[in-house]
Amino acid sequence: MKIKFPLILINFKAYREAIGRRGLELAKIAEEIYKEYDVSIAVAPQYIDISLIAERVEIPVFAQHAEPFDPGSHTGFITLEAIKEAGAIGTLLNHSEHRLRIDVIDEAVKKAKKLDIITVVCANTPEVSAAVAALDPNIIAIEPPELIGTGIPVSKAKPEIITKTIDLVRKVNENVVILTGAGITTGDDVAAALKLGTQGVLLASGVVKAKDKRKVLEDLAKAVLETI
Amino acid sequence: MKIKFPLILINFKAYREAIGRRGLELAKIAEEIYKEYDVSIAVAPQYIDISLIAERVEIPVFAQHAEPFDPGSHTGFITLEAIKEAGAIGTLLNHSEHRLRIDVIDEAVKKAKKLDIITVVCANTPEVSAAVAALDPNIIAIEPPELIGTGIPVSKAKPEIITKTIDLVRKVNENVVILTGAGITTGDDVAAALKLGTQGVLLASGVVKAKDKRKVLEDLAKAVLETI
Amino acid sequence: MKIKFPLILINFKAYREAIGRRGLELAKIAEEIYKEYDVSIAVAPQYIDISLIAERVEIPVFAQHAEPFDPGSHTGFITLEAIKEAGAIGTLLNHSEHRLRIDVIDEAVKKAKKLDIITVVCANTPEVSAAVAALDPNIIAIEPPELIGTGIPVSKAKPEIITKTIDLVRKVNENVVILTGAGITTGDDVAAALKLGTQGVLLASGVVKAKDKRKVLEDLAKAVLETI
Amino acid sequence: MKIKFPLILINFKAYREAIGRRGLELAKIAEEIYKEYDVSIAVAPQYIDISLIAERVEIPVFAQHAEPFDPGSHTGFITLEAIKEAGAIGTLLNHSEHRLRIDVIDEAVKKAKKLDIITVVCANTPEVSAAVAALDPNIIAIEPPELIGTGIPVSKAKPEIITKTIDLVRKVNENVVILTGAGITTGDDVAAALKLGTQGVLLASGVVKAKDKRKVLEDLAKAVLETI
Repeated sequence: MKIKFPLILINFKAYREAIGRRGLELAKIAEEIYKEYDVSIAVAPQYIDISLIAERVEIPVFAQHAEPFDPGSHTGFITLEAIKEAGAIGTLLNHSEHRLRIDVIDEAVKKAKKLDIITVVCANTPEVSAAVAALDPNIIAIEPPELIGTGIPVSKAKPEIITKTIDLVRKVNENVVILTGAGITTGDDVAAALKLGTQGVLLASGVVKAKDKRKVLEDLAKAVLETI
Repeated sequence: MKIKFPLILINFKAYREAIGRRGLELAKIAEEIYKEYDVSIAVAPQYIDISLIAERVEIPVFAQHAEPFDPGSHTGFITLEAIKEAGAIGTLLNHSEHRLRIDVIDEAVKKAKKLDIITVVCANTPEVSAAVAALDPNIIAIEPPELIGTGIPVSKAKPEIITKTIDLVRKVNENVVILTGAGITTGDDVAAALKLGTQGVLLASGVVKAKDKRKVLEDLAKAVLETI
Repeated sequence: MKIKFPLILINFKAYREAIGRRGLELAKIAEEIYKEYDVSIAVAPQYIDISLIAERVEIPVFAQHAEPFDPGSHTGFITLEAIKEAGAIGTLLNHSEHRLRIDVIDEAVKKAKKLDIITVVCANTPEVSAAVAALDPNIIAIEPPELIGTGIPVSKAKPEIITKTIDLVRKVNENVVILTGAGITTGDDVAAALKLGTQGVLLASGVVKAKDKRKVLEDLAKAVLETI
Repeated sequence: MKIKFPLILINFKAYREAIGRRGLELAKIAEEIYKEYDVSIAVAPQYIDISLIAERVEIPVFAQHAEPFDPGSHTGFITLEAIKEAGAIGTLLNHSEHRLRIDVIDEAVKKAKKLDIITVVCANTPEVSAAVAALDPNIIAIEPPELIGTGIPVSKAKPEIITKTIDLVRKVNENVVILTGAGITTGDDVAAALKLGTQGVLLASGVVKAKDKRKVLEDLAKAVLETI
């Protein structure tokens, strides 16, 4: 994979605070922290900003979703080929705000492999995480949806979800990387995620909606350095 | 489980030939063959006929789908509780004509377990079968969609799909029952499915659209007796 | 049409209180009130109970939804042909809990006409009501979703929605019947709906979840008699 | 509106031939023809290329779809606000490859109006066109899906669909602009569309997949000049 771990992956969602010029600025900050602390940070901007950010910022860029079907008559949809051409090295799939059919995840993971695109498949429960692991994506992000956007980190509120996820996933797939998502906002949350045995975090509002985005990202990066 | 294996499971789909009075007649024939040959046969009629068939026929009745959400404000949807009250002992889920989100399958399987409802989760590839296996349903039916309704049995056209499915599923789940679906129409197909290591078949048009439904079912039942 | 107006149409939704034996009992009560007061009442039970209720109760039975495609390979879906064969004379379409694509509503209304099935298309705004009117169903039910299940009747809380709906619909379609939905629970609500110029009500929890269902239905029926 | 009619609107779909650098080149050609002939041409590129094309090309840019919900927690979806910020002046909605629920079209049209975004709502039948007209978008494109991508123009194969659409739409809405879509590839097709009474064309493969895109666009532009 073209990224290193532990990884801090920032989902820009459809947030007003992270689109266009503001999205580029946030990506620039992430790039600075990446370089200053040598901690792996990646961003998942809206489709509309992928090419701009991929061109101007030297950190990995992910799409938030992509369709597995081939380029063609699919008005209003974005293919895996399209995100790659725009400069993304990977994509989120099956985010809790964009759930997918099981056969579509299978198809997307297989096709992304052929195209050398990194897949980060989100899962809402330990069992779904294990199911996803059987499809062999590069990365799984476990995110209990009831904690997303709450600021209550799953690593603190329900650490047993993380440990159970790791247990179930490892029985099915030894290699897939596991990230912790949902409610991550502080360095402590990152440290907890790493100590529980996952290799990074997926977060969104904790950074995107922060008053001082740089400070939050610095806090997260320092926690990575102190924990590993 | 309240059913025995090998199992011949007949999906009535939304076929005109298997609704209302005609659906009841087909279920009656299935019951007669079941009793005459002591071979396990179950039927999955349309919602509309579940209670009628469950009341008048003494073979297991499955729904073709059911929603995992609780009874309530869900106009036009049928819950797991509703199919149980109507007399079904189980339900198909994720049929290729009714694909589901991975989180919905997880939710449905967990809830069905609590309600003591048997789940038959369909899968289109060996990898999806393994993913489904991680969700621990009672039964998986592997059905390559390109063969459904063709009369070309997967057990003959692509036996390696069945064997690969068994391999991948068993790494994840030792107990789940595996059925062979897609293109099954003759006793030979049933024999091939059993010899490959699955515990029965899921079929539809092969029986429902047959001129002589009794003869087809007899042929299938005899093949079970000759193979086991 | 095989029903008369004003109409009280009771949607059983997926309520636990209105399924199986309990659904039949509620339909029986509706039938008694219909006969006693000669006020038109119809029921929309779950698919699973359509045939039972249509067989044993002499009031119009509607489905809660039906698919416009032809009978065939559609596992887990119910066609217009199927609800007709089960004894329904009509169907709800596009309920706020089961929203449809505009082309599917068009297709369903056209096919229902050929099959002599009455269509009751729900709409959430005056504009959507007018759009639906252009598709020429038999009946439109205007139901602001924010009031559904609240017990706050649209006819009182937002009477201007009803009058605006009537205005916009009549510019497009002179014949379609308009029902008032959302929040209807009392005879007063029914009276208000009729006085505003609609020809009946669509309601659910107000009857289905009532302690004394007969009393509520009597109250609604009396209000019809006193208003017309 | 910020565009003039007759209009030639080119949908880039998810075609490989119209993404990234190739999409920009096609938009450049469209711009040249626009300026040379003073015939109104607009493009609807993939999300990923909207900002690039809007920045470098001086013709109207449309999105192929946009969600009506507000910016926020909607991973993998693009809002009306986002396409506007990226430089689009309008959006297609309800394309046959991206059909929408009737309430979503209503919501999108209303919100686009507030944001001063032009809406082009596609419709598959005259009745759906009339229904859409009741929602009062800026533009309706009538496209019988069975002709899309065939090279058989609706204006020739089924001119009665266009005339019936105009009749039904005008009863509901006097102002909405009507475009002809499906199967348009030549100047003759454009001329036929204008003579039947529509104010332009929506096309895709006819231009995007043409060997000589400039020549096709010139042919279309000349036909506009000769017809009006």
